Amino acid sequence: MSQSALDDLSTPSLVLEEAALSRNLAAMSQRALDGGVDLRPHCKTAKCIEVARRATSPHSGAIAVATLKEAEYFADHGFNDILYTVNIEPSKLSRIAALQRRGIRMSAVLDSVAGAQLVAGAATVLDSPLELFLELDSGTHRTGFAPGDAAIVDAARLLNDTPQLRVRGTLAFGGNGYIADAPADTKAAAERERAAAVHAAKQLRDAGVDCPAVSVGSTPTRTMGESLEGVTEIRPGVYVFMDLMQVKLNVCDYTDIAVTVLARVIAHNHRENRVYIDAGALALSNDLGIRPTAGPYAPYGLLRDPETGGPIPGLGVFGVNQEHGFVQCADAEQPFPFDDFPLGSTVRVFPNHVCHTIGSHDRYHVLDGSGQLTGEWERVTGW
Amino acid sequence: MSQSALDDLSTPSLVLEEAALSRNLAAMSQRALDGGVDLRPHCKTAKCIEVARRATSPHSGAIAVATLKEAEYFADHGFNDILYTVNIEPSKLSRIAALQRRGIRMSAVLDSVAGAQLVAGAATVLDSPLELFLELDSGTHRTGFAPGDAAIVDAARLLNDTPQLRVRGTLAFGGNGYIADAPADTKAAAERERAAAVHAAKQLRDAGVDCPAVSVGSTPTRTMGESLEGVTEIRPGVYVFMDLMQVKLNVCDYTDIAVTVLARVIAHNHRENRVYIDAGALALSNDLGIRPTAGPYAPYGLLRDPETGGPIPGLGVFGVNQEHGFVQCADAEQPFPFDDFPLGSTVRVFPNHVCHTIGSHDRYHVLDGSGQLTGEWERVTGW
Repeated sequence: MSQSALDDLSTPSLVLEEAALSRNLAAMSQRALDGGVDLRPHCKTAKCIEVARRATSPHSGAIAVATLKEAEYFADHGFNDILYTVNIEPSKLSRIAALQRRGIRMSAVLDSVAGAQLVAGAATVLDSPLELFLELDSGTHRTGFAPGDAAIVDAARLLNDTPQLRVRGTLAFGGNGYIADAPADTKAAAERERAAAVHAAKQLRDAGVDCPAVSVGSTPTRTMGESLEGVTEIRPGVYVFMDLMQVKLNVCDYTDIAVTVLARVIAHNHRENRVYIDAGALALSNDLGIRPTAGPYAPYGLLRDPETGGPIPGLGVFGVNQEHGFVQCADAEQPFPFDDFPLGSTVRVFPNHVCHTIGSHDRYHVLDGSGQLTGEWERVTGW
Repeated sequence: MSQSALDDLSTPSLVLEEAALSRNLAAMSQRALDGGVDLRPHCKTAKCIEVARRATSPHSGAIAVATLKEAEYFADHGFNDILYTVNIEPSKLSRIAALQRRGIRMSAVLDSVAGAQLVAGAATVLDSPLELFLELDSGTHRTGFAPGDAAIVDAARLLNDTPQLRVRGTLAFGGNGYIADAPADTKAAAERERAAAVHAAKQLRDAGVDCPAVSVGSTPTRTMGESLEGVTEIRPGVYVFMDLMQVKLNVCDYTDIAVTVLARVIAHNHRENRVYIDAGALALSNDLGIRPTAGPYAPYGLLRDPETGGPIPGLGVFGVNQEHGFVQCADAEQPFPFDDFPLGSTVRVFPNHVCHTIGSHDRYHVLDGSGQLTGEWERVTGW
């Protein structure tokens, strides 16, 4: 690919390769179709209407979000089945009510009887029913009922006894797929995720509680998982762009990473044997990703080799300040190849964890398959 | 202070205590006045016109920024002496030229003869002279000429031989003040910062190069440093808000921290002995700050105690995902005080490194000295 299309871009900025995006979207879409389930992409990663439109085709159009600002942004652009995935508490209900008044079908997540009681007590602010997914903790040890906990039935009954609330289904997030050491571990995390959500749905149905939806997801578990029996929708997010963590987890290859941070070389520091770029902690984030057991790693990302589409061997971003990053050799004793990185030249940084890396950026510069810039896609930030 | 004023705010969001801000501004302003130097606040921290206006009074109105978007934002609001502090390279000159055409006095930073040659070769895009500060590395080991390096004279002559460029002065950033273990180390870093910039200015003047400005700064060095002899301006940034790193460095006390992240408790996880809040990696950043040799520490920040204005003893934010954070006891074996953190209640998180913590937020909610919300101040984000 020619670098010339990027030479006019300001740095730091995000470059989005549409061909890689399309491949990633098609693969996950096919998994949903093959499993006979809906694909509800988690739009917390891209936060971008252009990506969300492509990701939901040919599925129902349902999406997941992680902030109410994302919900409002996607509602502004015609999405009308939106699941807010961070546990709901009363202060959020007025913004949800405003979305419902615009005709949006809103869902949210709860994971305790106490939470259900609290939301039920504040639900009069809602004009129409808020639909709730009851979350299971299938091994992430974050939020969720323990699998088998009978309290989930109590919570569901309490919700369904409240006119402004209604149980929509069960939900699990196999975040433990992110700490798996081998594909077999990720497959096992995927199966625990599925089993937890499906079993809890059976608990509810056995108790006479309607439970139409069973939602599971994370990119590793929904790429590597085998069975979708009993599931009605999958909810992956990172898959649209992929990143170095997903490469480490064997979910994808480097050439599947669709978003990189474009930066420029701004200083040669011969005394320290490194170069500085104009992307630092805000443009790359401080997310250290996951150090792979084998293969290249740098705490703030690897540089993309324009020849191979993989990482430039032996180099990486080893430090950041607010708007400075430095690139050095993984073996710091090795002479840095300064001639390959002239002052003012561009580099592209593969993100460790794309959701965090791109968190402060407000747009993507889209490259088509022939290396031409075809436009800018905006993304929403903040809360 | 009453918590009630904050009960209507969406979470996560930033709370700015105007009284602490005013104290921080007044103390640094007095240091500049006492030293007979200008105060050029580094506006990369607050990125906010309301803060910049207060910080520059009664000084010249000069400011420093770390992105061209900040420069454009402050220019839009009447600031007209703006120093862009990340080493300049040719692709940035067209945006700088656009600012100059609006009447803004623009300065930038260079640290090598090669950089000066490159910028000189591209300088025809400028209509009026861009003023350059030549940077010294006084121990940060980031960018800058080595102190005593005769090449700084060559770079200065090369710049002054280019009609669109002009040397304005020398500049040093004592970032090594951030890794100091004791106040004496920070004072020594401050003196090295001053000496490097002053000595380089003498080198230039001895060689017949005009060097009107000598700029030094960082919050630790300009709070703890003793001499400003030969300096014309100081350039601190974090001091406006302070943070846990500055407390660790003995630069301030907890009650001087002017910005906290307001969040709500969204889940009680009794099995894991922790609570979850709705502020995660994007609302708090992944910046781990600096672990103090003594005193409390948590990797993603400490919680503010509304009674004391200091940290709640024995607790902190020990983990983050994109929009989830978890609060647990520093001694994980100790029972978590769930009753003190009811579902839906608010907490305020002291930032480890405020510049990074607040990077994705687009506004401050301002609290006056009586605990009343007096308005919102916008801030600029992105590039």
